[in-house]
Amino acid sequence: MNMIRFGIIGVGNMGTNHAHNLYNGKVEGACLAAVCDIDPSRLSYIAEKMPEVKLFDMAEDLIENAEIDAVLIAVPHYFHPVYAKMAFAKGLHVLTEKPAGVYTKAVREMNEAAKASGKVFGIMYNQRTNPVYAKVREMIRSGELGELKRFVWIITDWYRSQSYYNSSSWRATWAGEGGGVLLNQCPHQIDLWQWMLGMPCEIRSFMEYGKGRDIEVENDVTTYARYANGMSGVFIASTHDTPGTNRLEISADKGKLVVEKSSITFYRNKIGEKEFNATYRGGFGQPEVEEIKVPITDVETGHVGILQNFTNAIVNGTQLLAPGEEGILGLSLSNAMHLSDWTGHTGIDPMHLDEDLFYELLTEKAKNSTFTKKTEKMNLDTEGTY
Amino acid sequence: MNMIRFGIIGVGNMGTNHAHNLYNGKVEGACLAAVCDIDPSRLSYIAEKMPEVKLFDMAEDLIENAEIDAVLIAVPHYFHPVYAKMAFAKGLHVLTEKPAGVYTKAVREMNEAAKASGKVFGIMYNQRTNPVYAKVREMIRSGELGELKRFVWIITDWYRSQSYYNSSSWRATWAGEGGGVLLNQCPHQIDLWQWMLGMPCEIRSFMEYGKGRDIEVENDVTTYARYANGMSGVFIASTHDTPGTNRLEISADKGKLVVEKSSITFYRNKIGEKEFNATYRGGFGQPEVEEIKVPITDVETGHVGILQNFTNAIVNGTQLLAPGEEGILGLSLSNAMHLSDWTGHTGIDPMHLDEDLFYELLTEKAKNSTFTKKTEKMNLDTEGTY
Repeated sequence: MNMIRFGIIGVGNMGTNHAHNLYNGKVEGACLAAVCDIDPSRLSYIAEKMPEVKLFDMAEDLIENAEIDAVLIAVPHYFHPVYAKMAFAKGLHVLTEKPAGVYTKAVREMNEAAKASGKVFGIMYNQRTNPVYAKVREMIRSGELGELKRFVWIITDWYRSQSYYNSSSWRATWAGEGGGVLLNQCPHQIDLWQWMLGMPCEIRSFMEYGKGRDIEVENDVTTYARYANGMSGVFIASTHDTPGTNRLEISADKGKLVVEKSSITFYRNKIGEKEFNATYRGGFGQPEVEEIKVPITDVETGHVGILQNFTNAIVNGTQLLAPGEEGILGLSLSNAMHLSDWTGHTGIDPMHLDEDLFYELLTEKAKNSTFTKKTEKMNLDTEGTY
Repeated sequence: MNMIRFGIIGVGNMGTNHAHNLYNGKVEGACLAAVCDIDPSRLSYIAEKMPEVKLFDMAEDLIENAEIDAVLIAVPHYFHPVYAKMAFAKGLHVLTEKPAGVYTKAVREMNEAAKASGKVFGIMYNQRTNPVYAKVREMIRSGELGELKRFVWIITDWYRSQSYYNSSSWRATWAGEGGGVLLNQCPHQIDLWQWMLGMPCEIRSFMEYGKGRDIEVENDVTTYARYANGMSGVFIASTHDTPGTNRLEISADKGKLVVEKSSITFYRNKIGEKEFNATYRGGFGQPEVEEIKVPITDVETGHVGILQNFTNAIVNGTQLLAPGEEGILGLSLSNAMHLSDWTGHTGIDPMHLDEDLFYELLTEKAKNSTFTKKTEKMNLDTEGTY
């Protein structure tokens, strides 16, 4: 069987990581055939480390001429839908970095192009390979938790110093990224949120922009969400707290789940809350609880896992763990959060948000930006991040 | 030296508790001289258990004729300011149960009456005797945490079943309590919030009324708060989650504090975040952290501690741990939360809230109530609650 030949669009921090994985044969049935980058120094790096790989300085050229089967898109977020659409038009499979894009309008078009092409479309939601969140999802879907009542997810462990923001000119600008923590650091968790818990019907967000940092985008977000079934949620994300927290608590009829430091504790009610409430007569008192350490046996396969699953989908039609079309869900949540803070509106439905208004306000921010970016030349080591 | 003679107004669940403490000599320098209650069966109970204590069926009569030095007010919240003002007018010292009242207008008048009388005025904020929160307060005030950035307090461990709500006719009604979890269960923590962290300048609250319960008031509250210095806060309270959580996390320049299960963990940055950010050049990376279990040596003295401190304040001018005048702070927070949810307004300043609008909306709710209260006769054992 032939190897699936990958072309990587953009070999900055993340793209280089993927290049090493493919080049070093970590993905069975796949190889790295080509890369492109507008920065000549990045191409020199690849030429030196991976001499057989073809080099291009334009994505358009790579897509047109590289003799590849699939592209992996690892350029700034605005360009994900742009290059994905080009690649689909050329008949290539597409794996895009997260987020799917910056605004849902463009992502909707990308999804349509994917559908029309019939090609495999994946998104690098490597956190879906994290067995902890997969287990939580399974416990919810199997009914083990019963009806969901509340979640509180504090994600303040994405600490980024000013030097990080200064490492690339596009980082943390409206024109370059179209957002901050929601677009760059948190897309994984925003996806996990909807993947595990489903989409809320109302969003109210409160943000701080450039808190303690010389940046123009949000680096502190507090969101209140409401679900059709009455469940409520709080989602907190920041990049300036240290040491941070990553703690997810889910309250449900049959007990409470606490996810922290890669472990899951299930406080299980011996009688469901509703049943207890309906029958108890003693005033104070609550159901008896068992504390269970939920065993996690699977191993996180990360970026390589997503690359392997994507390759398998091309080769033998394996089901995608992270279908590209689902990228719009997390982005809809993110856009709804921004729109809510920008307009002061409560109750924005992420599935029915005013896409034109969002696009208009975002474009305004980029156009009216008076921010002067200070950049220091450096390539960051993304080992250990995602 | 003469004993301070207490009269207790209301010997329901909580008042009976206080009566036992005073009658059994748990408060040095104080004795129980009289009680009043509109329910004859409560007076029969006291007559049987505490034969020397004078009985009254009207608060007005007790205040006028009981030959006492101080009153302890333990009736439904609306009546706290009413009886406090009467008692001050008669020249009595006053210790009121929490909350100070239901709306700040009345509490402001009570505070003025207290000031005019020159008598000792305390409030039963017994959680201020909890050494855990006292320690957190001290760490903040001493500057050990540096500038505060964020707090998240999840207080979902006030589980109350329907049978609790059915135990008294005034419970969980707009006319009887003027609110739910904010007025009955959480006033302690709302006070601790402002006592430890100060008053925010903006409030936005989201509430559920009668969630999973046949009651008309709020039993699920999520509040976002903003401070003048840029700190943000999230305060979550409910009475229908089980098992619940009581977890306070405070993020600050010099580290993070986590308070849970009566223990404090301090994750201390070896270099403050601001300083680290200003000097670090490595992109990813954060200050080194030490994990410290903060020792708690003091013992919680609870209701008896507040009674003793109040008595000492009368006898030798000891400083009050919980001055009655401070009750308006927690109530202002609580009123601001309600007003924000009722009006949908963001950014309500609890120190400058529209008291007339709040009172008008509250009165409307009580007047327009179509709720039929089902009551079962019972006296709850409040041992172990506060």
